[in-house]
Parts: sequence; C-alpha cells; structure tokens
Amino acid sequence: MLTASYAGNRTIVISEAEPAPPGPGQVQVAVAYTGLCGTDLHILHGSMDARVETPLVFGHEMSGTVAAVGDGVDAWRVGDGVTVMPLSWDGTCPACAAGNQHICQNLDFIGIDSPGSLQPMWNVPADTLVRLPAGLRLDHAALVEPVAVAVHDVRRAQLTPGQKAVVIGGGPIGVLIATVARHFGGDVVVVELDEKRRTQIEDLGFTTLDPRAVDQIAWVTEWSAGAGADVVFEVSGAAQAVLGATSLAKVRGTVVVVAIHPTPREIDLQRVFWRELSILGARVYQRVDFETAVDLVAEGVIPADLLITRIVPLTQTQDAFADLEAGRAMKILVDVGGQQ
Amino acid sequence: MLTASYAGNRTIVISEAEPAPPGPGQVQVAVAYTGLCGTDLHILHGSMDARVETPLVFGHEMSGTVAAVGDGVDAWRVGDGVTVMPLSWDGTCPACAAGNQHICQNLDFIGIDSPGSLQPMWNVPADTLVRLPAGLRLDHAALVEPVAVAVHDVRRAQLTPGQKAVVIGGGPIGVLIATVARHFGGDVVVVELDEKRRTQIEDLGFTTLDPRAVDQIAWVTEWSAGAGADVVFEVSGAAQAVLGATSLAKVRGTVVVVAIHPTPREIDLQRVFWRELSILGARVYQRVDFETAVDLVAEGVIPADLLITRIVPLTQTQDAFADLEAGRAMKILVDVGGQQ
Repeated sequence: MLTASYAGNRTIVISEAEPAPPGPGQVQVAVAYTGLCGTDLHILHGSMDARVETPLVFGHEMSGTVAAVGDGVDAWRVGDGVTVMPLSWDGTCPACAAGNQHICQNLDFIGIDSPGSLQPMWNVPADTLVRLPAGLRLDHAALVEPVAVAVHDVRRAQLTPGQKAVVIGGGPIGVLIATVARHFGGDVVVVELDEKRRTQIEDLGFTTLDPRAVDQIAWVTEWSAGAGADVVFEVSGAAQAVLGATSLAKVRGTVVVVAIHPTPREIDLQRVFWRELSILGARVYQRVDFETAVDLVAEGVIPADLLITRIVPLTQTQDAFADLEAGRAMKILVDVGGQQ
Repeated sequence: MLTASYAGNRTIVISEAEPAPPGPGQVQVAVAYTGLCGTDLHILHGSMDARVETPLVFGHEMSGTVAAVGDGVDAWRVGDGVTVMPLSWDGTCPACAAGNQHICQNLDFIGIDSPGSLQPMWNVPADTLVRLPAGLRLDHAALVEPVAVAVHDVRRAQLTPGQKAVVIGGGPIGVLIATVARHFGGDVVVVELDEKRRTQIEDLGFTTLDPRAVDQIAWVTEWSAGAGADVVFEVSGAAQAVLGATSLAKVRGTVVVVAIHPTPREIDLQRVFWRELSILGARVYQRVDFETAVDLVAEGVIPADLLITRIVPLTQTQDAFADLEAGRAMKILVDVGGQQ
C-alpha cells in the first residue's frame, strides 16, 4: 500500500508499506479520505519536530470502514462505517483522574505522536472508533474531526441561544465554529481579512467584517446594543487579534482561545480585570463532541461541499499542502483509499 | 472639619471644610477610620488623573457610625455601626441589566469618582451602608472592604475545600486572599519576593516561596502530586509573574487576575490552550462578599492586628503613603474621627 509520511525538512515522502494485521484490542480501518489541516501544516513546516518522530505517517481527520478486527474486539464488524477520535490517554495522570482524559498529561495524539491515517490500512485502538450512520458520504464524514473541534469550542464557551458571538478568523475551523454556534442558536459575525474567504462565508449566510475597513469595536458595540459580544472565539492566531479580542467582549463575557499561539501574546489584562472577562483555552474534543459532530455532518448542518475545496490522490499530498499554505483552499481531502 | 484631598502632582492637601447635611436618600456617616490602599497610591501617583477630578477627597476602606439620616431613609439610626460598600451603579446599562451591577459600565466608585472617606462627616447613599455587628472594633472594621475584595476573588475562583491555591504576591490583598482561601478549605502557598513579608506571612501559618530561591514550577508540581495548582491568584502586578502563572495551574485550572496591569502583559496562550486553563478577571465585590467580609472580620478569621501596621492622624496621610510606597507597612489606617 502507498503511504504519505512527513520525513523532516518540509518534505513528504510517498512510499510502499505492507499492511499489518490489527493487534489485540485494535481495529484495522480501511481509510477512505483524510483531510489536511493546520496542525499537519505545522508538522510539515518543522514547527513540531521536537515532538514528532520521522518518518511519520501523519493525518488524523478521516473516514473509512472496518477492514478487520483484532482479538478481544466485539463491538465492530467488517464493513462498518467509522471515523476515529484520534486520542489515546494513559488513564492514570491527574488530568485523567479528574475526568479530563481528552487533555491527558501524557496524551498520544494519533497522527502526531503515533502513525496516522495517510495510509490505506490503519490500525487503531477499538475504543477510538466512532460509528457513522448509514448513508453518510465518506468524503463528508472526513470533516467530523474538525467539526468536533468546533463543537468542543462552542460547548466550552457555554454559548446559549440568542447570544452574540464574534469569530476572529474565517479559515476552516472558524467557519465550522460559526456554523456550530449558529446551529446552537447564536447570533454570529465572522472577522476575516481575506476578501475571497469573506465572500465564501457570506454565501453561508453569515455577516462578515473586514477588520481593516471597519472599526470592529464600534461595530460590535452597536450590534450588541452597547453590551459587547457574549463570546469571542480567537481562531486567527494573530497577535493583534488577541490584543483586540478583549475589547469586543461584554462584561463577564468569554474569549475562547482556539488558535495555536507558539509564542506568548500580549493581552489587555486591565480589560480582563475591568469587565471580569473569562479567557478560556479549548483543545481537541471529548466523545460527546465527536458524536455531536457526526450528527451535524449527517444532518447536513455542516456545509461540507462548500468546505471541501477538492479531493486529491495520495501522491499529490505535498502539492495539496502548498495550496493550503497559499490560502488557495479551505479543506483538501486526500483520497487515501482510491475511491475516485 | 479637616479633610485629606489628592490635589494632583503627587500632593495631598489637608484642608478645612464645612460638613453638609445628608440629602434625600443619603446617610451622613461619622467616619472613624479609613485604610489606605494600592488604588489610593495609584491616584496619588497620578496614574488615574484622567479619571479623577481634583481636588478629590479620597479613601474608600472605612468604618464609622451613622451621624444623621436624610429624608426617606428608614433603615438606619444615629449611632449604628457601619461600613460602606463604595459602589454606585446606574442600574440601566447592559451589565446592570444582566445582574452585574458591581461592574456597571458607568460605575461610580465612591472615593475615586466621587468624594471618599478621608473626611470626618461623609454623605453616602443609604443603600451603600453595610451594618457592623455590636462589639466589632472600628479599627478592625476598616478592613472589611479589602477583605470583601479577597472574598470576591476566592468566590470567583470557585475554590472548593481541599483544593490547592497559589497566591502570587504577599501584600495586603494577597494575604487576605490567602486567609480567605484557607478559611474556605483551600491549601495555600504564598509567593513573595520580600523576606520580611514572607516572615510575617509564615507567622500566619502559611507556607511561602521565594521565587528567586525556589523553582516554583517544580515545587508546585511536587506539592500537587504532578497535577499543578487548582487556582493561581495573580496579585503581584508583575509582568514576569503573569507569564509564569499559567505554568503553575493544573489541567482545567484557573488563574484569577486580581492585580492591576496598566499595560498589556504577555501570556503563555499555548499553555492556556494546552491545559484548557481559565483566566478570570475579578474586580471589586458584590454585597454578599461584603457581608461575608463583615462576618470574617467579626469572627476573628482575619488577622487584623497583624495587618494593621499602624494608625496615624489625618494630618499624616501623605507620610503614611510614603511608608506604603517604600514597603514599610502592610496596612495603615487614618484616624479620621480623632478616636486616638
């Protein structure tokens, strides 16, 4: 089978490998599609070289079917449609003991810390599988993982119907957060620099702001009748956005830090103090988020066709990353299983 | 009567004034003691010149007795022991409408935005009064306001019995937070640079850390069996402390921003994201905090005699600030009423 690996030095290597049978407690998944995301791009850029062992078969946004089950696995049958929640926790650290397994202090993020889904036959622990309903298209199902991120972020914000949310950054995760927040009753505006993205987001029925053309603070203040936004999602990763995010939130409002900020950022703590704001980190997802995400994709809440810019064969993985990096795509899926 | 006013240019003026009778809905309070705090020092330093109108009779940590009541005031009688919760809200802004009157968007902080308690006869709205129990010494009662700050901070942290709390900064508010957190069942350590203060805090039965001598992160990690602290109170106002605070907190732990940070501070957002931390602003207090604070002072939970370094006559107010600034005192009370 052909696999795609990050080999260091900004390089992806396509190579032949022999599928291994699933071990005890494992399931062998025939991967259909793998989506490429910002974290994969961080890996390719070498930003995570201290963490990843090369060569690494990466990829963690996927869909597929069960190809074989290992000893001791009773819940799954060959042919079941599945996606994988790519987290494996130790179950013993203080975070796990407190019920926060999803951010285990020794988390194995499958696809980063261990081999991922850019291979046609992928062995994973059976308890990472999440069932797909009959009839859900496998290309759409490859979006479940990023949708689960968005569900987790919105749930972490404790957004309630009728509340006003600002999403800073209209990339794939920003659009998904906006979509999920709106589905849960929020009134959403998306702040995005790129004109083409703004048009795509407006086509989904959202209001957008160009922060270079509009005074965001004045706009949000008027929009919220003087209060400020209930929730601000910081999805841009930009230092300037972080500094401004606190000015958009209401008294006792919430800023959710979704983006990765590799270096410390300046925050207006005077504003945090003055308005008794909450700044909350939100990372990955819990099973309830994944299951909700499956439902949202299956129900058509997620604009999958609009988000999936295109589908490429495994051999074009490196080119696909170049397009993502250049902002020429929202989401690119790799056709790992050779469906198309 | 003699009053103490901030007159701009780092100067306090002591001047004669004629007491005014209380207006409708007001109570005239015979001020006994007024405590001097860090906010008053900020005023004196000119940091709040854009906000305060000079000359300003300032001061807002106080105790006294009712001297006279205005028209329409039924709940108070001459001679009642009182302290004042020095907040006056508009009742109509979005924050008030949402139940957050204490951080009203147009808050009048009495003693900053309107005249304060460094005058023997002080007229205040009747609904700002908080009753003192019989037998509570008026010098001790002057600590109720800063104790209410500490109660609010601990309540905002949602500290539960058995949880571990780190207090960064062992000034008066830090010591009060430590005291309140311990009273509510927390296991507390105080980080303080100054050796003399560390000794005073240890005399209250607390463990202290000198951050220059001890690896705080390693210490807190070991203390918490690898988890990190449940709550970190940032009371120091130091940029370096803010940057480090996130490293001390457990997965899903809380950092409460108590100190005033006049300029933006660098925060380790990667850590906020990674551990799903909460950074919460906490400002002033609500009535429940003030009433709890009265109880804690009356019950002797607060080490009042240790905290009150000394009591000075009104005419020595400027000298008292010099001592506070030089770190030569925890809390200095001004004997406004001439009791001593």
